[in-house]
Amino acid sequence: MSPHFVTFTAQGRQSYGLHTGSGVIDLGPGNPQLPSLRDVITAGALKEVFLQGAGRADDYSLDQVTLEMPIPNPGKILCVGVNFPDRNAEYKDGSAQPQYMSLFPRFASSFTGHDRPLIRPPENHTLDYEGEVAVVIGKPGRRIKAQDAYDHIAALTLCNEGTIRDWVRHAKFNVTQGKNWDNSGAMGPWLVPFTNPAQLDGARIVTRVNGEVRQDDRLERMIFPVREQIAYISTFTTLQPGDIIVTGTPTGAGARFDPPRYLAPGDVVDVTVEGIGTLRNTVQDEAI
Amino acid sequence: MSPHFVTFTAQGRQSYGLHTGSGVIDLGPGNPQLPSLRDVITAGALKEVFLQGAGRADDYSLDQVTLEMPIPNPGKILCVGVNFPDRNAEYKDGSAQPQYMSLFPRFASSFTGHDRPLIRPPENHTLDYEGEVAVVIGKPGRRIKAQDAYDHIAALTLCNEGTIRDWVRHAKFNVTQGKNWDNSGAMGPWLVPFTNPAQLDGARIVTRVNGEVRQDDRLERMIFPVREQIAYISTFTTLQPGDIIVTGTPTGAGARFDPPRYLAPGDVVDVTVEGIGTLRNTVQDEAI
Repeated sequence: MSPHFVTFTAQGRQSYGLHTGSGVIDLGPGNPQLPSLRDVITAGALKEVFLQGAGRADDYSLDQVTLEMPIPNPGKILCVGVNFPDRNAEYKDGSAQPQYMSLFPRFASSFTGHDRPLIRPPENHTLDYEGEVAVVIGKPGRRIKAQDAYDHIAALTLCNEGTIRDWVRHAKFNVTQGKNWDNSGAMGPWLVPFTNPAQLDGARIVTRVNGEVRQDDRLERMIFPVREQIAYISTFTTLQPGDIIVTGTPTGAGARFDPPRYLAPGDVVDVTVEGIGTLRNTVQDEAI
Repeated sequence: MSPHFVTFTAQGRQSYGLHTGSGVIDLGPGNPQLPSLRDVITAGALKEVFLQGAGRADDYSLDQVTLEMPIPNPGKILCVGVNFPDRNAEYKDGSAQPQYMSLFPRFASSFTGHDRPLIRPPENHTLDYEGEVAVVIGKPGRRIKAQDAYDHIAALTLCNEGTIRDWVRHAKFNVTQGKNWDNSGAMGPWLVPFTNPAQLDGARIVTRVNGEVRQDDRLERMIFPVREQIAYISTFTTLQPGDIIVTGTPTGAGARFDPPRYLAPGDVVDVTVEGIGTLRNTVQDEAI
């Protein structure tokens, strides 16, 4: 059994446990002192909690559970923008490669879980996908050195950093309002403990829409690698267990096509990273 | 006694209560089901909790307590940029008045409480002040109409939206990293329940550095008034009790002087709004 940690809702109750492929082992009731996966991570107890599930049968079948984003109560969520080659050129503003990374926060409410609808709002239909790897901080730190950065990562997950493109351009500065529509993005399906640098350094990321490859790159091509992200971010803010860094998307989002290829109801978006899994969501118009 | 709600630490324990001018009445122990002011607001219980304090003597003198930011565990914190006349012109980029407001999130860790040090980090000395009013949401809502917006505000407080100016310009987009240095800003000293539109519509805001007036304007001159802020923000994200909107600063920040007048250790910054009070902080170099 792989250590695939999920947060889920079953029978109206939210809990966490292990995704076995066939179902879910519920580990919440056995750990009342650790009420969420964030608490498990803060306690440094991922391994201990994983071992509690060893050899156990599923408590729920997959059709009995709804997956939530793996850390439904995160601390800070910081996203890195313009972080793969050709992404800067995509902005077509003639600017040189930036010296520092672009960063923007997202609220947890802007994400849903695996296999749940990505919501296209009635106000604007330029919903777009961005496949990314998200790292979950496990150990607090300020002014973390790049060479120590990986010690501060507890786990990895996937993110579709869904965006309402037109609203990204609403403001003089900042992409805030295009990046924070309720349920416009997704995280999941699960957390994979981070135990080996190769999980980040060597992996390939592919985003598909209805099976068609739209983004396909390798994480090692990041302009600002994850180690540098942690070093830079922790210069100004103390990273805490349960904080999440969404590490940047390759070229190939729908907005970059001419004409743009935005998402429409029924479209299925898959984000796949070797060693982590596949995050899948289907687009749905908001019911209001 | 005025309803001035504070979150404070005394004898190593965090609680909340009423600031009487001479001291603090501790209301936390009497409300175990409402462990924080955010919970009080979520329960719509500000008035009920206030009445519990009526006629009571101080539990602590002022020198026995340290004030925290009034909601130390807020939900979303959204700040409105470039929201007073002449502020857009201050950017000297020849741009027209924007059609939409600029918004950026700040993390709670970027704020400290009243009468606590504003921290100037060793990496950069362009620490600047921005006096603002912050509104605390009390009633959830999505797509709130401007005319209903005030019904969703539970309380007001003051904010020094302290900024490391050079880092605001680090990135291609977004001011994130200049706006989120640990303890670079402040909120407080207390929450005042919002019961009358005139508290926002008619008030004057003044920011002083070492007693010298640097910002002086009236809230009614906002380009995007608070009602419109709530309507616009709630278009894309559901506002929840405990969310905070920092509503924008008048012209006159230190960066706008030639040469700029940044804050230095020992400088005292006061933000005063009629009917709310004065938030005061002294600048201190970070001890590392």
